[in-house]
Amino acid sequence: MTAEIITIGDEILIGQIVDTNSAFLGKELNKVGISIYQITSVQDDKNHILKALKEAEDNADIIIVTGGLGPTKDDITKHTICEYFNDTLVENKDVLAHIEHLFSTYISTPISDLNRRQAQVPSKAKVLMNQFGTAPGMWIEKNEKVFVSLPGVPYEMKGLITNEVIPALRKKFKFPYIKHRTLLTYGLGESAIANRIEAWEDALPDFIKLAYLPNLGRVRLRLSGITLDKAMLDAELEKQIALVLPQIEDIFVGFEEDISLEAIVGKQLTELGKTIAVAESCTGGQFAKAITANAGASKYFKGSIVSYATESKVNILDVPKKDIESYSVVSKEVAEAMADHVRKMFNSDYGISTTGNAGPSKGDSDAEVGTVWIAVANEDKVYSEVFNFGNHRDKVIMKATNKAFEMLQKEILKK
Amino acid sequence: MTAEIITIGDEILIGQIVDTNSAFLGKELNKVGISIYQITSVQDDKNHILKALKEAEDNADIIIVTGGLGPTKDDITKHTICEYFNDTLVENKDVLAHIEHLFSTYISTPISDLNRRQAQVPSKAKVLMNQFGTAPGMWIEKNEKVFVSLPGVPYEMKGLITNEVIPALRKKFKFPYIKHRTLLTYGLGESAIANRIEAWEDALPDFIKLAYLPNLGRVRLRLSGITLDKAMLDAELEKQIALVLPQIEDIFVGFEEDISLEAIVGKQLTELGKTIAVAESCTGGQFAKAITANAGASKYFKGSIVSYATESKVNILDVPKKDIESYSVVSKEVAEAMADHVRKMFNSDYGISTTGNAGPSKGDSDAEVGTVWIAVANEDKVYSEVFNFGNHRDKVIMKATNKAFEMLQKEILKK
Repeated sequence: MTAEIITIGDEILIGQIVDTNSAFLGKELNKVGISIYQITSVQDDKNHILKALKEAEDNADIIIVTGGLGPTKDDITKHTICEYFNDTLVENKDVLAHIEHLFSTYISTPISDLNRRQAQVPSKAKVLMNQFGTAPGMWIEKNEKVFVSLPGVPYEMKGLITNEVIPALRKKFKFPYIKHRTLLTYGLGESAIANRIEAWEDALPDFIKLAYLPNLGRVRLRLSGITLDKAMLDAELEKQIALVLPQIEDIFVGFEEDISLEAIVGKQLTELGKTIAVAESCTGGQFAKAITANAGASKYFKGSIVSYATESKVNILDVPKKDIESYSVVSKEVAEAMADHVRKMFNSDYGISTTGNAGPSKGDSDAEVGTVWIAVANEDKVYSEVFNFGNHRDKVIMKATNKAFEMLQKEILKK
Repeated sequence: MTAEIITIGDEILIGQIVDTNSAFLGKELNKVGISIYQITSVQDDKNHILKALKEAEDNADIIIVTGGLGPTKDDITKHTICEYFNDTLVENKDVLAHIEHLFSTYISTPISDLNRRQAQVPSKAKVLMNQFGTAPGMWIEKNEKVFVSLPGVPYEMKGLITNEVIPALRKKFKFPYIKHRTLLTYGLGESAIANRIEAWEDALPDFIKLAYLPNLGRVRLRLSGITLDKAMLDAELEKQIALVLPQIEDIFVGFEEDISLEAIVGKQLTELGKTIAVAESCTGGQFAKAITANAGASKYFKGSIVSYATESKVNILDVPKKDIESYSVVSKEVAEAMADHVRKMFNSDYGISTTGNAGPSKGDSDAEVGTVWIAVANEDKVYSEVFNFGNHRDKVIMKATNKAFEMLQKEILKK
């Protein structure tokens, strides 16, 4: 059973937006046992959409289309689908009532004909009610194949997939069992890992695929299998993991399965009843943002200070001015004072700090672009390390944030 | 002149990563006059890659392939390209020397045969040296069509596109002129905007396309044209913008063209010589992260405090404990105290604060999920507004951050 995802919109092709919908769709469909054959992003152009629909119908059993359902003239998906299925648009009373309700409740501008026209759907389509917006989803069947058209606004699409599309697909089809197990590692490159585990990799059974996913100082190892025999696949995956784990013990962080290192750290802190506070300079809020992306972060995250200006390090974080003058703002001494003081200010168990130069120019310090000091403090001591994360601003910020999480986790695991 | 982008990797199809490469490629190619026909994401599967290459060759003049060039066994792009072009791999001495140099300089593990094999390239390929990694880019021509294969690691791919691929394409082809002008608006929905500017939209010349791009309280209006006559298109776009601007004056923020509202605010602050400081609760660092994503933010961003725990609002930000007890932590009084105090702590011209409940549960306050107070302080006064951003955690965080930037900009523009 395979699916093809078609995302529609010139804004995707010219790179004005990043297509995050496809990743969500891929993950959710895959979870229930659907293999994604292909993701195709096409222009707001009738003939191109028709061609993509035809090819997807040839390639896959389930075709999910997103985008082009808005109220304005550049949105042509609904009319194109009508043409593809040789159908006409009819007004759906439930959708119209829903649109009128949304306008009367949340929107200050009056409802217009453009909005009302969003209640028109192809006569052959089953309507999927959109809880979070005005454009309904549509479900059309043809020769045992399913076509679903969804709005491109991410949270509207997500609501429809979770509440409507997945349950309906499970009702209609019987899917095989797909399982991925992803081992999160840090501190070693992919080829070094591959060399270490080569004998194990070569002996993997044919129905299990291994992939290496490197990203800024972290490598994920993903084992994937697809089968009708759930018990066999589960057992084999566990067996293979038990074989490889001793070989990567020193670099193994945890299992990903939709959990990030940030979430793992959060879980560990929650279990230990410990808290953290953060003083960020060059990472500029990225660490705090990553922590608070997890619901429940308020259990272990006390807060953070982004001391971007040098004077803020002195005034807010109480870093000794003479340390900044003697050692510069990017130094072991300043990093450690930041971690220690932020921990005390917030009365937390751990304090983490970053100070460095993300580039592109040298800023308030003489440190080379890419130089970052990261410090960790607990109630007994504070220590730090220095890194050079290269000369690419975003990369420096992300690598420094990743490394800070790595150092924090290593500190937590010492207990 | 059209291009097709092919991104290779099961991790894209199962949604384990978001394909950000395509957006970058789309934007960069489009800038020099290349229309993107389609983006196709395919599996790590030889036959699927061969099929995608064939279809792309039929559809487009330039085919850009990313991914599958790593050193490990799951990386099969290079061998598949060899098969497609009926070619064999040969070792390239310059690439080998580069790999050996990278290992001796930056990597602590010894170089292995897997790494050395990355120096092998198809004999028909011109090598594109990869400044930021071990896998080289490859350029192959066939019947006046160009195939380029690049590594999937984003910053490696980006370096190769900017330094090698774009200059080589410009040398080989003559491209038409493509121009987009994007008007950034806030505060009004897309259908309300469409109704307002309907007469103008209907009178647009055929060679100019208009698109509406709504996103969490902001709508972008994009005008696009493609032509051989640069002067004509530039003039017509300016003329049309001059016609529409008076109709959207109250909601117009600025022109996007690769500049975000965050960057516009940064520019305005820099010009005025003004500074800001931020106290974030429910936005958890997102505002600071968005500010510091711009190089040069240290000119106007003094810093921020993420006071995630209620006690931090009292201890660090000096919010009166009685206000929290009387009005709750999500209240006008607390938001305004946060904005006012953070401004004074950091000695900045403006202070911004957010306090709310992003969900999914109620947390330290009785406020409904989605309720957010945002306050703005200057040296004379502090004021605030309350919003309900719905019941979706990420959406609440992003909408609150966007709205805080909107309020900040309105405050700046008062001067």
